[in-house]
Amino acid sequence: MTMPHTVTLFDQELKAVAGRVSEMGGLTEAMLSDAVSALTRMDKDLARRVVAQDKRVDALQFEVEEQAILIIARRQPVAQDLRDVIAAMRISNDLERVGDLAKNIAKRVIAIDGTFDSKKFALGVEHMTELTQAQLKDVLDAYANRDEETAVSVRERDDEVDAIYTSIFRELLTYMMEDPRQISICAHLLFCAKNIERIGDHATNIAENVIYMATGVQPMDDRQKQDETGVVAEPSS
Amino acid sequence: MTMPHTVTLFDQELKAVAGRVSEMGGLTEAMLSDAVSALTRMDKDLARRVVAQDKRVDALQFEVEEQAILIIARRQPVAQDLRDVIAAMRISNDLERVGDLAKNIAKRVIAIDGTFDSKKFALGVEHMTELTQAQLKDVLDAYANRDEETAVSVRERDDEVDAIYTSIFRELLTYMMEDPRQISICAHLLFCAKNIERIGDHATNIAENVIYMATGVQPMDDRQKQDETGVVAEPSS
Repeated sequence: MTMPHTVTLFDQELKAVAGRVSEMGGLTEAMLSDAVSALTRMDKDLARRVVAQDKRVDALQFEVEEQAILIIARRQPVAQDLRDVIAAMRISNDLERVGDLAKNIAKRVIAIDGTFDSKKFALGVEHMTELTQAQLKDVLDAYANRDEETAVSVRERDDEVDAIYTSIFRELLTYMMEDPRQISICAHLLFCAKNIERIGDHATNIAENVIYMATGVQPMDDRQKQDETGVVAEPSS
Repeated sequence: MTMPHTVTLFDQELKAVAGRVSEMGGLTEAMLSDAVSALTRMDKDLARRVVAQDKRVDALQFEVEEQAILIIARRQPVAQDLRDVIAAMRISNDLERVGDLAKNIAKRVIAIDGTFDSKKFALGVEHMTELTQAQLKDVLDAYANRDEETAVSVRERDDEVDAIYTSIFRELLTYMMEDPRQISICAHLLFCAKNIERIGDHATNIAENVIYMATGVQPMDDRQKQDETGVVAEPSS
């Protein structure tokens, strides 16, 4: 088990798993970007392409899980190696959800009947998406580079996304009140905004697993990561 | 490693992890039930108790993860034992989310200003909750008894929950259109209904992990588990 040749093979296996996780990361980043472009432009063709891409993300997650379990069973990793395998499984789980959430935005774009013409909404969603994408990108770089410091900074940035989400939530309710014909479309947009906010939460989870990988400290589950519209986002009216 | 004494200790460790998972299951079942009671009765005190309970669920998940990783590192389990440990980690992850979703319903109950008087909505939500709770209860029993057959049946029952969710979604949009003063409260109720539907998805995930534990077949990630309001739930108006 400790012969150089075997260790090299083992290292290759670990790298293969990490490579698949990174591939998932790249795909889900693109899905988020495309889903939001499809949303702000009401581009149903692009939305359909996003939906189709999710199969690849699911397949990759399946492979990560299979390989990780095989590594645990055959190689019986401990310490850093075991943390790497556990972190890969957890991160792939979060990325699979990111893909699902992006796909759900795309499905809503396909379903929405009519147009919703609000520059303010589009700007808000785009801004929230930029922040979330930056979180995803940074945390995936942090994963590839075992960069604990960046992971900590990603974890701390989630509040800003939550604040924009809360403001979009209020704004959509106002649109609904002003024009009841917009209620159906705005309900879909509420869920789209919520999905982006959830993607930010998953970036935070991933950050915690990068920290775990680097330090062995388990993510503490004092999750204040859900949106607080349950508490604060009552519209003023 | 194969001496009887050690094996017995190992078995005890595995049982301790499974016991914590079952405890999480019982807690989250109660949280769902209480959160929905709080919602239909607008009982803010009960809602506050649900919010408080989530800390215990999070703490249990933390313990399951820690113990599972320790078992992998120290005992180097293979085959059935490894599947048990992996399944416990995954199931505890789903149950932690169930707790979060129930807590989010409770937080919305605390935040909602005013009352929403619809027998039809209350009945729909209660019916959806009953089905979801039955799913949770059955899948937790299936976990405790390694009962693959029941797990398969839980997985197949998710469509019914999704159908009720879609009908509640449409109904809430109709209320919003009829009375714009109800828009804010109905937006919260949309998310509450969505949360219950998501809990059904997590019950399905848990079912897949019980099947994995029993058979070694990895959950296939062809997840059609998200709601399809993105596709079908356009209100008729």
